[in-house]
Amino acid sequence: MNCTKCPTSTRAVIGLPRHNAAFCKACFITFVHEQVARAIKSFKMLSPEDRILVAVSGGKDSLALWHILLTLGYRADALYVNLGIGSYSEESHRKVRHYADTVAASYGAKLLVHVVEQEAGAGIRELATILHRPTCSTCGTIKRYQFNRAAIEQEYDVMATGHNLDDEAARLLGNVLHWQNDYLDKQSPTLPASVEGFAKKVKPLCRLSEREIAAYAVVNRLDYIVEECPMAKGSKMILYKEVLNRLETESPGTKQRFYWGFLDKQAKPDEPAESMADKDQRTLVPCDSCGQPTTAGTCTYCKMMAKAKTAAPR
Amino acid sequence: MNCTKCPTSTRAVIGLPRHNAAFCKACFITFVHEQVARAIKSFKMLSPEDRILVAVSGGKDSLALWHILLTLGYRADALYVNLGIGSYSEESHRKVRHYADTVAASYGAKLLVHVVEQEAGAGIRELATILHRPTCSTCGTIKRYQFNRAAIEQEYDVMATGHNLDDEAARLLGNVLHWQNDYLDKQSPTLPASVEGFAKKVKPLCRLSEREIAAYAVVNRLDYIVEECPMAKGSKMILYKEVLNRLETESPGTKQRFYWGFLDKQAKPDEPAESMADKDQRTLVPCDSCGQPTTAGTCTYCKMMAKAKTAAPR
Repeated sequence: MNCTKCPTSTRAVIGLPRHNAAFCKACFITFVHEQVARAIKSFKMLSPEDRILVAVSGGKDSLALWHILLTLGYRADALYVNLGIGSYSEESHRKVRHYADTVAASYGAKLLVHVVEQEAGAGIRELATILHRPTCSTCGTIKRYQFNRAAIEQEYDVMATGHNLDDEAARLLGNVLHWQNDYLDKQSPTLPASVEGFAKKVKPLCRLSEREIAAYAVVNRLDYIVEECPMAKGSKMILYKEVLNRLETESPGTKQRFYWGFLDKQAKPDEPAESMADKDQRTLVPCDSCGQPTTAGTCTYCKMMAKAKTAAPR
Repeated sequence: MNCTKCPTSTRAVIGLPRHNAAFCKACFITFVHEQVARAIKSFKMLSPEDRILVAVSGGKDSLALWHILLTLGYRADALYVNLGIGSYSEESHRKVRHYADTVAASYGAKLLVHVVEQEAGAGIRELATILHRPTCSTCGTIKRYQFNRAAIEQEYDVMATGHNLDDEAARLLGNVLHWQNDYLDKQSPTLPASVEGFAKKVKPLCRLSEREIAAYAVVNRLDYIVEECPMAKGSKMILYKEVLNRLETESPGTKQRFYWGFLDKQAKPDEPAESMADKDQRTLVPCDSCGQPTTAGTCTYCKMMAKAKTAAPR
C-alpha cells in the first residue's frame, strides 16, 4: 500500500478507510496536524496568543494533544492529576514526567501536578469507598474540579482535553440512547468560559479517531501508558465504543458521520451552542469554602474532601 | 421461574428482563394484548368501527398482528404480496393462506392477494435486475404501492403493519447515525391519511420486542415462516438489530428507552407529528397512469411496470 498523497508514492504507514486514503509517515503527521488545525478553526478553540492548560493522563490522547499543540506553536502547559491507583498511577505519572522533561521543556512548557492523596488523605479507590460513590464518578468530580481550578487560579485562557472522535461518538451514542437533552447540549467541542468561574474548554482532537491518534503517538515515538485505567473495565463507554467499532468496520465513516452530523445539526460554527456554564449562570455562586462556582453553599468537591478527612485521618 | 403476576404462582413461559417480570402463558397473552391496546390508544391508531387492512408476509410479526387485532374484536382483512422469490414465497404464501382459512375466516375476515409476477411479468429478483435497482428497494416500492392502493381503492380506513420495537429501534438507530431528519419525522407509529391518496398507516406492535412476538406466535400455535427473506442477508437493518441486541443484553430496556424516549421527545400523544404525507401535500398530484399520489406525471411504480414489461415480455 502506497501513500495516496505523495507524488513519489512512498510506502504508506497507515490506511484510513473512512477518508479512502493511505499515508506515509510525513503525510500522516501533516494530516493529523491539519485535522487539529481545522477543529481549532471551525470551533474557535484557540488564538495564537492563548495560554493553554492541557489535561494530561499519560495516555496516548492527552500526550499526543500536548505534543501537537506545542508543535503547532501554541503556548501549552499541562496538569497531571495523580489519582493514587497503585502501579497504574505510578507508571502514568512517570510517562508524563518523561515527556515534560525530554520534550515539553524544550518548548518552554511546564508540567503542573496535583496528587489526590496529598489533599484528600486517600487515593481514588479508598475515597470512593469512604464516600459511598462509584469510583469513576468520584474521579470525574476531582479531575474536573482540579483542572478548572488550576486553569482559573493560574489564569490560563483555555483548558484543552484529549477527547477524540471515538470518545465523543461513544458519549453521543450513550446520550442519544437515553435522549439526555441536557448532556446533548454539552457535547460541543468548545464550551465558552463563564463569568462565575468556569474556564473555556476545548477538544482539539475531536476530528481524529483513537486509532489515528495511537498511530500518531507511535510514529512520533511518544512514550505513553498503553494500559486502560483498571477502574474503567466494564464501563458503558467501552461498550459503546465496541458497538461503534462494529458499525465502523461494516461501514467506514460511521462515527464521523454520526458525530459531525450531530454537530452540524446542533449549531453553526458562527453561533456556538449555549454552554452548560451559560445555562447555569443564573444559579451559580462561589463556593463558601474554596470560591469555585457551585449551585449553593459548599461545592461537591469541598464536601467530598471534608468527608474524606473526617472518615480517614492519616 | 414462576409467573410474577399470577396469585397462584404458575410456572412462567417467558422472562422479560426489561419489565423485570416473568409470565405464565395466560398472563403473557394478556400482557401482549395490553401492550397492543396501549399502543392503539396512545397513538390514536384505530377506532372500533374501522375497517383495517393488515399487511401480511407470512412472518411472525404480521400474522401475530392479524391474530391480535381479530382477537381484540377489530374488523381486519389482510393483503399478501407474493414477491415470486422461489420456495420462500411459496412457503410464506401457504402459511398466510393456512391462517386465513383456519382462523381468520371464522372471524369473517378475508385475505387479499397480489402476485407481482402476474402484473410485472417477473418476480422481484428479475425485476430488480431489469430495473438496475437494489432488490430491497424494488420490493419496498412495490409493497408500499400495492398496500396503499388496495387500502384506498377498497376503502379501508387504515393500514396496519407488523413493525415491532426491534424494527423501529433499528430504523431509528440508522436514522440517528446519519441524522436523517426527514426520515426521523416519519418514525411515528401513526401516520395520518392525506387528502391526495395516502392511507392512514399504523404500527400496533411498536411496544413489543421481536422476541416477545415470537413467543406470542409460539404459545398461540401460529404457523409462520421462520426463515428470513433470503434477499435481506447482510442488510444494514440486521446489523443495527445485532448491535442493539448487544446493548440490550448488557442493559435490558435499552431499545425501549431509546425508541419510546424518541417518541416522547418527538410529539405529545395529543399532537401527532406532522406526517410525511402532510408535508408532501403541496406537491402531490394523481399519477397520470394509475391515479395514485405522486410528485409529478407518472408514478415510480407505473414507470417500473412499464419498463419491466418492455424489457421482459412473457
